[in-house]
Amino acid sequence: MINQIAENNFINSLIKNFPRSRLQINNVHESDAEIIETAENSQDYLAITTDSIVEEIKTGLYDDPYLIGWMSVMVNLSDLAAVGSKPLGILVSEILPSNFSSKDLEKLQTGISDACKMCNTFIFGGDTNNGDNLIVTGTAIGILENKKFVSRIGLQENDILYSTGLLGKGNAFAIFKFFNSMNKIFEYQPIAKINEGRIIKDFASACMDTSDGVLSTLDQLMRLNNKGFKLDDDWENKIDKDSLKLANSSSIHPWLLLAGYHGEFELLFTIPQKLESEFLMKAKGINWIPIKLGVVIKEPKLKIPIYRKLVEIDSTKIRNLSSNLENGIDLYLKSLLAIDKEMRSN
Amino acid sequence: MINQIAENNFINSLIKNFPRSRLQINNVHESDAEIIETAENSQDYLAITTDSIVEEIKTGLYDDPYLIGWMSVMVNLSDLAAVGSKPLGILVSEILPSNFSSKDLEKLQTGISDACKMCNTFIFGGDTNNGDNLIVTGTAIGILENKKFVSRIGLQENDILYSTGLLGKGNAFAIFKFFNSMNKIFEYQPIAKINEGRIIKDFASACMDTSDGVLSTLDQLMRLNNKGFKLDDDWENKIDKDSLKLANSSSIHPWLLLAGYHGEFELLFTIPQKLESEFLMKAKGINWIPIKLGVVIKEPKLKIPIYRKLVEIDSTKIRNLSSNLENGIDLYLKSLLAIDKEMRSN
Repeated sequence: MINQIAENNFINSLIKNFPRSRLQINNVHESDAEIIETAENSQDYLAITTDSIVEEIKTGLYDDPYLIGWMSVMVNLSDLAAVGSKPLGILVSEILPSNFSSKDLEKLQTGISDACKMCNTFIFGGDTNNGDNLIVTGTAIGILENKKFVSRIGLQENDILYSTGLLGKGNAFAIFKFFNSMNKIFEYQPIAKINEGRIIKDFASACMDTSDGVLSTLDQLMRLNNKGFKLDDDWENKIDKDSLKLANSSSIHPWLLLAGYHGEFELLFTIPQKLESEFLMKAKGINWIPIKLGVVIKEPKLKIPIYRKLVEIDSTKIRNLSSNLENGIDLYLKSLLAIDKEMRSN
Repeated sequence: MINQIAENNFINSLIKNFPRSRLQINNVHESDAEIIETAENSQDYLAITTDSIVEEIKTGLYDDPYLIGWMSVMVNLSDLAAVGSKPLGILVSEILPSNFSSKDLEKLQTGISDACKMCNTFIFGGDTNNGDNLIVTGTAIGILENKKFVSRIGLQENDILYSTGLLGKGNAFAIFKFFNSMNKIFEYQPIAKINEGRIIKDFASACMDTSDGVLSTLDQLMRLNNKGFKLDDDWENKIDKDSLKLANSSSIHPWLLLAGYHGEFELLFTIPQKLESEFLMKAKGINWIPIKLGVVIKEPKLKIPIYRKLVEIDSTKIRNLSSNLENGIDLYLKSLLAIDKEMRSN
């Protein structure tokens, strides 16, 4: 079931001859960050993850060096947040084109620095090289005190599906950049949900960040746990208001803000019913109001009320569209809109 | 003095607004890998480092995907070796061009896998993206048991300069790839000196790997410690025999095998005289014969017997040539040969 998704299949083919270390606590795909035991007598685990900003730059989705720097840190810290880890630091490798101005470099570095400060973390070194295109790779390392963490595995039927925040900003930003029909600037500068993640790890049965959009995240959790999700009837109220406005003005149905491949970097997680009230109390303690999205169902399907019916989303098809993103954003959106049209007419 | 070197200066400008964490044990430039204390009560330190393979691919120096995979692991493990760390694992981020064949991808992954096995380490995750050029970034993490490590700082006058092995292979390989005058294949597949590094950390006053060639390494140690080096009269005997042959057949003086920017990934380190015999005994215990190269001198100068005189090498000039490598290998070699010519005629 994991291999129905081209990306999962590709990862599995890449690593097929890589033996795993007995220090690696999680299995492949099962965690946003690798969980590592550094020594046998160690009291804590480490969480470690790497992510590059490449296609977002190449397609023009990110064209502000400040945002590129910011995101190179945040995408990695978001993976640490998703396992409940406290970040220690991040290493940054930069490929800089020779026509990259010193002013742009200053912006890039400021974006990196500001993102670190925002999440109370530090630069643990880096590497710079000259290349044809700007590429920034981050590798973040965090600590899991007393070996406590949350992974993508463990959710059960009737667990309650939550998000750390309102959804849709990632794909709304993509609509804004590629198909803008508004004059107003659309702000996109996600912050990794570090503090939220540290509470989530104590209560949630599973957690994953929405780096590839909400639908991809739910789909992956579905495959890994062989369970499904049903979103609540009022899920449109859980979409960020500006994103909703932007989608409406572009005649794009709100469900596509969940379906697109560009994420809002919230955490989706599941809370067993009996832990819900204690969890919500702890959340209140940091002035955080988690967003209830739906419920875990027995059947491994994604069910969302759209166009006044409960639609079973073909998330395999939708996720595999993103493997063809190199053929252009226009074609990608066209394919998504075709699926939407089909849904409308059914 | 550090800022006389364009690369150091550039690094300092990049990080000028990055605050350091109180968990970071070393200062910038002072260590091949960052030394990290993960928690206040922790028994060990972590060592962590990142390095990308970019220019080596772009210039054609590395054109075999197996070697590219191998090097993406080894350059990082070599940094861990230089601080005396035992590797735990490595994360790999790959930028793959769309015309990269599945056969080449298989070779790349095998190179990565073989390098890990050779050094008894593991893949701790990764990331793949589509891009115009092949780029591989590794981030390695290791442990320093009982917080013992060696840095680039601490060498004293009269300490003895050693290398883990024979020198020159890195630059000989570059000569072979770019200016080949021999029919025979020149083998280049360095192995990080992990076991040697773990002995070195117990005895050496300073250590650094030769990732940028021997002269760059000595120059950086000189600047950081405000001490110099004098190589022994017989230093040519410490050059790898095949490399020497290749240089001779290309009419390139052996000292240029130390001067070029492409390294052999040995460790250069300094041993206080009073520890030398015990150090050599420990080395013998793992069937390793360290190569004695010279001695630390009071004056911060690099003195090498070349053309029957003791030459004071202008390593500032030589190192800064590498900042112009983007203007082409030919120009770089031409500039090096001009310095050699000047030396001959003086």
